[in-house]
Amino acid sequence: MREANGNATVHVNSDNYVMCLEFEVLRSGESGGRRGLLTLPHGVVETPVFMPVGTAATVKAVPQETLETMGSDGGGARIILANTYHLYLRPGHELIRRMGGVHKFMSWDRPMLTDSGGFQVFSLSKLRKITPDGVEFRSHLDGSKHFFSPEHSMAVQIALGADVMMAFDECVETPATWERTRESLALTHAWAERSAAYWREHREQVPWFAERGGKTQSLFGIVQGGMYADLRRESAERLVEMDLPGYAIGGLAVGEPREVTREMIARTLEYLPRNKPRYVMGVGYPDEIEEYARMGVDMMDCVLPTRAGRHGLVFARVDGAIQRLNIKKLEYAGDRGPIDASCPCAVCARYSRGYLRHLFSSGEPLAATLLSVHNLNFYLNTMERVRTTI
Amino acid sequence: MREANGNATVHVNSDNYVMCLEFEVLRSGESGGRRGLLTLPHGVVETPVFMPVGTAATVKAVPQETLETMGSDGGGARIILANTYHLYLRPGHELIRRMGGVHKFMSWDRPMLTDSGGFQVFSLSKLRKITPDGVEFRSHLDGSKHFFSPEHSMAVQIALGADVMMAFDECVETPATWERTRESLALTHAWAERSAAYWREHREQVPWFAERGGKTQSLFGIVQGGMYADLRRESAERLVEMDLPGYAIGGLAVGEPREVTREMIARTLEYLPRNKPRYVMGVGYPDEIEEYARMGVDMMDCVLPTRAGRHGLVFARVDGAIQRLNIKKLEYAGDRGPIDASCPCAVCARYSRGYLRHLFSSGEPLAATLLSVHNLNFYLNTMERVRTTI
Repeated sequence: MREANGNATVHVNSDNYVMCLEFEVLRSGESGGRRGLLTLPHGVVETPVFMPVGTAATVKAVPQETLETMGSDGGGARIILANTYHLYLRPGHELIRRMGGVHKFMSWDRPMLTDSGGFQVFSLSKLRKITPDGVEFRSHLDGSKHFFSPEHSMAVQIALGADVMMAFDECVETPATWERTRESLALTHAWAERSAAYWREHREQVPWFAERGGKTQSLFGIVQGGMYADLRRESAERLVEMDLPGYAIGGLAVGEPREVTREMIARTLEYLPRNKPRYVMGVGYPDEIEEYARMGVDMMDCVLPTRAGRHGLVFARVDGAIQRLNIKKLEYAGDRGPIDASCPCAVCARYSRGYLRHLFSSGEPLAATLLSVHNLNFYLNTMERVRTTI
Repeated sequence: MREANGNATVHVNSDNYVMCLEFEVLRSGESGGRRGLLTLPHGVVETPVFMPVGTAATVKAVPQETLETMGSDGGGARIILANTYHLYLRPGHELIRRMGGVHKFMSWDRPMLTDSGGFQVFSLSKLRKITPDGVEFRSHLDGSKHFFSPEHSMAVQIALGADVMMAFDECVETPATWERTRESLALTHAWAERSAAYWREHREQVPWFAERGGKTQSLFGIVQGGMYADLRRESAERLVEMDLPGYAIGGLAVGEPREVTREMIARTLEYLPRNKPRYVMGVGYPDEIEEYARMGVDMMDCVLPTRAGRHGLVFARVDGAIQRLNIKKLEYAGDRGPIDASCPCAVCARYSRGYLRHLFSSGEPLAATLLSVHNLNFYLNTMERVRTTI
């Protein structure tokens, strides 16, 4: 621990010989938002940050070289996600380990984060059977049978080798009663302990351990607790005791009203250490990520910009307000203007709504690429604006 | 007409006040191949040239900015095609005219060529009814009824406004008897006359006429004649009498043995003027385009590099020989090498066979983009090598 600029800085690696995660809060805003620098084995990330999702080791339809150079500063996405469940099933984590880890596999030499696979096991797979030991499930691809435990999730994530890995948690169905949620929390906390134990024991097996001078991955815990503030607090306090390098807030944006999401985030942030990175998983719309960032969330991820893009939905700022345009609409046929006249992205600089509508209506693959690229730029630029105004 | 470097140069626009096509043969090789410069209203093209196909005003899955910067010299594709039939049906040529023509529509400020729509009417549409006046057909998209005549094809192509447009021809079924082929040729020649008459009368209606200082499009005639050398000669001689700015050889690579294709090209080239650009439509494999370029063909186009890419097929030079690899093959799983170790393209510089196989096997849209980009580079670099060795 050292103090920098009057703000807390945490170097997480007390029991190791090199720094694997460093988080420095550079400035704090009145609303609780803070600007920071997150240093990971593959690079430095300015926070608050939005992390594009690269489910199968590809941010869908977007080349890595485009990801690296997008955003108003041209510096691109600084950190991206990959999904453990998907990569475990295809092409398999052992193959990725043999290819040097997911960074080398997909040729992305910047920070990455993998989820634990838990959320996908619960949302995508079939015939789940949950025991205290773990979850048995069938692949959504071919019906084959698999088993994920906290230890196995860690082993897979170590083989993938993202800079940040996530504890294996149970995602409670929604809505769930207080009793059911509390019961689930016990499992999540036990699994977090087992995740942390496995990580501490095996983290030197990460594919780039030697090459990166003995650096390893960092493990984040995931606060659960459904829509119950008291359970969120209990979960946060319990996980903070484990002294992990960072903390996520999971199980939100699963259908609840937005005021509830905001309330749960606010009530959880109170109990998370200010000197560690705080990550809200799977949110949200551009105005949401801005709002949560201003509340003090440092990291967010969401498939929305790319998924919306593939469905012809694009974000634009019209008279200062964020709107979501449906590019399919007839009114855009023949429209020579860009998606968003105030957007500095390469798509808005070059292509018209009329052309993008034509591509989308004709089922042309370039539509998914260009609309996703615009939306990702919109998200990255939103965070850039938040960073400069905290 | 002027003589330059001892080679013939043709400025085609004798009856107009500005030059719309200039073709200069810089050097001729022993095998008949020649290196040239083709100057069109939207730029200069080094020949022999391979033209990527942008059917619906998009080279499938490849962003324009990538097309502009590919190739071993980083200069990108110098000229691309768009298909009149597709753009007429969707989004409609009048919409494209209102948006300033196909260059502005797709944001491509380099030379373009449109075909006449004839080939697609004959190969894609349903219920064709051919009369001396033109062809009635039903859209392959929605079954709606349409009519294309030479005049209508010209009107559509003028609205699109590519630098080069093609005469409307009949594509005879294959195989066809000599008698049937000759009969078809009469129609093709009559339609070429009507195409030329309409073009001469209406070419000032091109959307960029004023903006480009009164320049207009150039019309190329299409030599037909099936697999009969005497009919090819007759067709070439008949079209050359019309004194068009350039000539194409059509109706080849439709299933005949490759020796026949080569023979027909060779027997037709003899009767085409050496001082005008000569274009073989719809060919071919990388070794074919190299062979035809060395025989004296100046321009070629083919969907093969992009279509093969979308099907997981990539071209590579292995021990000096061109091979077509199927990236799906299990042997490429875990392969850390590039598609082609000798290829200077951005895909080979960055991505492994193992990763590309994963993208393709997982149905990821990035596969189509990266494999198409590699194949297009392979084609452009093949032509670049031919140009430097003539």
